[in-house]
Amino acid sequence: MGYTNITPGRDGYPANPNNLFCTVGASAGVSTILTTLCASPTTGILIPVPQYPLYTATLSLLNATPVPYYLNEQNSWSTDIAQLREEIQRAKAKGIDVKCIVVINPGNPTGASLKEEDIRAVIDLAKEENLVVMADEVYQTNVFAPNKFFSFKRILSQAMEQNPGQGYDHVPLVSLHSTSKGMVGECGHRGGYFELVNFPLEIAAQIYKLVSISLCPPVIGQALVELMVNPPKPGSPSYDLYTEEYNTIFKTLQSRAQGLYEAFQKMEGVSCASPQGSMYLFPTITLPDKLVARAEKDGKKPDEWYCLRLLDATGVCVVPGSGFGQKEGEWHFRTTFLAGGEEWLDRIVRFHKELFDGFR
Amino acid sequence: MGYTNITPGRDGYPANPNNLFCTVGASAGVSTILTTLCASPTTGILIPVPQYPLYTATLSLLNATPVPYYLNEQNSWSTDIAQLREEIQRAKAKGIDVKCIVVINPGNPTGASLKEEDIRAVIDLAKEENLVVMADEVYQTNVFAPNKFFSFKRILSQAMEQNPGQGYDHVPLVSLHSTSKGMVGECGHRGGYFELVNFPLEIAAQIYKLVSISLCPPVIGQALVELMVNPPKPGSPSYDLYTEEYNTIFKTLQSRAQGLYEAFQKMEGVSCASPQGSMYLFPTITLPDKLVARAEKDGKKPDEWYCLRLLDATGVCVVPGSGFGQKEGEWHFRTTFLAGGEEWLDRIVRFHKELFDGFR
Repeated sequence: MGYTNITPGRDGYPANPNNLFCTVGASAGVSTILTTLCASPTTGILIPVPQYPLYTATLSLLNATPVPYYLNEQNSWSTDIAQLREEIQRAKAKGIDVKCIVVINPGNPTGASLKEEDIRAVIDLAKEENLVVMADEVYQTNVFAPNKFFSFKRILSQAMEQNPGQGYDHVPLVSLHSTSKGMVGECGHRGGYFELVNFPLEIAAQIYKLVSISLCPPVIGQALVELMVNPPKPGSPSYDLYTEEYNTIFKTLQSRAQGLYEAFQKMEGVSCASPQGSMYLFPTITLPDKLVARAEKDGKKPDEWYCLRLLDATGVCVVPGSGFGQKEGEWHFRTTFLAGGEEWLDRIVRFHKELFDGFR
Repeated sequence: MGYTNITPGRDGYPANPNNLFCTVGASAGVSTILTTLCASPTTGILIPVPQYPLYTATLSLLNATPVPYYLNEQNSWSTDIAQLREEIQRAKAKGIDVKCIVVINPGNPTGASLKEEDIRAVIDLAKEENLVVMADEVYQTNVFAPNKFFSFKRILSQAMEQNPGQGYDHVPLVSLHSTSKGMVGECGHRGGYFELVNFPLEIAAQIYKLVSISLCPPVIGQALVELMVNPPKPGSPSYDLYTEEYNTIFKTLQSRAQGLYEAFQKMEGVSCASPQGSMYLFPTITLPDKLVARAEKDGKKPDEWYCLRLLDATGVCVVPGSGFGQKEGEWHFRTTFLAGGEEWLDRIVRFHKELFDGFR
């Protein structure tokens, strides 16, 4: 079995309750942290592209500047440090004060799972450039072997322990989690938390003041956070049932992810990284010129047009890549493998073949 | 029995579901509306003083300008239109673009309940000055006879119906409600909603976009909102039990409010408007000079010092008026009559007498 890591021993390092903040889901945590960091329109926040649009929406609201960095699709949507450095320099040259890097791991919409060394490289970059690291780790339990989830807290804590006096204890990290994803999957209760690591006390005090305006997150969401981070232990009455349900959900997700991946292999012009985790696959799709022209005639982006046709023909809803950001001239769509059953996989393959046959 | 008005017939006018937004408690609704209205540091929002500090905190976060107006303590903490006009003129002279008036009815911390004509006067002022009216009506079920709750929606709808073509349909109103107060009193579930009246479609669309960033309020809070606005009807199985519990809570609140009011009558230097509703009384307290001097020596505001001494001596926690705003040189404290029992009333009276005896 591939799951681990939601127990209190996740990081191998202790957490101070004063640094833990309950939130109304992870979104509210993101909003709190970005509100604290964004001082003016020249404040820059590094955000991955493609990304879950919460980040761009929140930055737009705060009138701050998103500094996008492209994830490396050729290398399983990993984080490309050389490209990050370039974006930072380019932003600085424009007078942007780059304050923070957002990393979504496991990725949304990409489904990518970062390797230990990728995380360490982001932390090193943050140290060098004085960045706050914002680790959106809401899919942390959805990682398929041989991939493994490494928390930023664990990797940063190791760096601090192994390299005393080298400044790792000055890298501020905020790590976010939620009850809405993973095997718990209680979306509607809006339970979440974030943990601050290496934040100066006076900044933490401002964050505390800020969250106090909203009084409290929902109590049931708070209770679910507790149940999530302290699941039943071996020997406790509900341990066996919990483990069985957890593993069943996990195995079903993984099996459907594989089925979807294999379906994409059969589809002309579609290429996709193998499933690593999260709840998503994010294939590239090369669309025939005639189809692109037809979409433009209908006043739609080609990926949007494709997704609408798929929905009409099969009842399967996928999200066009243009909603998440993608390189100029590329098209993607995001699929989830949450929905039960696998009989809809063939429907997608058949739709795609018929559509392409008509536009070749 | 004095309660009415939480049924769907509250306003006597229909509501369009497209204008209703579920929120994470009323606080989130306030934040959404103020975020939409506040365009720059010169945007002014009229807020009552004393007021629940949510408003000043949110405006501070949005970098907009609170335009305070004093409630009229001599007239049961009512809204003073002449004073409002003065504040608007004064703000305009400073280059402030006054966009909205916040009215908390029933009042927090004052406990005041606005008369029908007071509400109409605020609406007339809003019409004249092109203001959005933001009616924080979270205490609407807590109103003691002979006072009665009138919703801004009802009074505005009547004005529109009775005076066609006179511009009342151009007065935008947002009315907020919550499951956290009143006889329902389910604070921790964060259920709330707001209704937009007379908002232009394009503004409502922006509000819809804004709330979409946060995905959804907690489902249980949403369910509680439904139960609150559609309580059991006569003849339904739970009607009798519901009515009994509702009435018991209401009567107990009213009785304790009266008890607290009578206790204040016995206390030297304390004067208080008679209980009208909400969950609060907000007496003025004239403190002996020697006590004021002692508080200052201890580095505390006199009302804060008094409240801390009361807490130490009796275990009763009240909130100093300085947290809500009060006129220069005046002192108040806010008490709630939520806590069970009445045996603590005598303790407050005794503490007060002994304290004053020591500082006369």
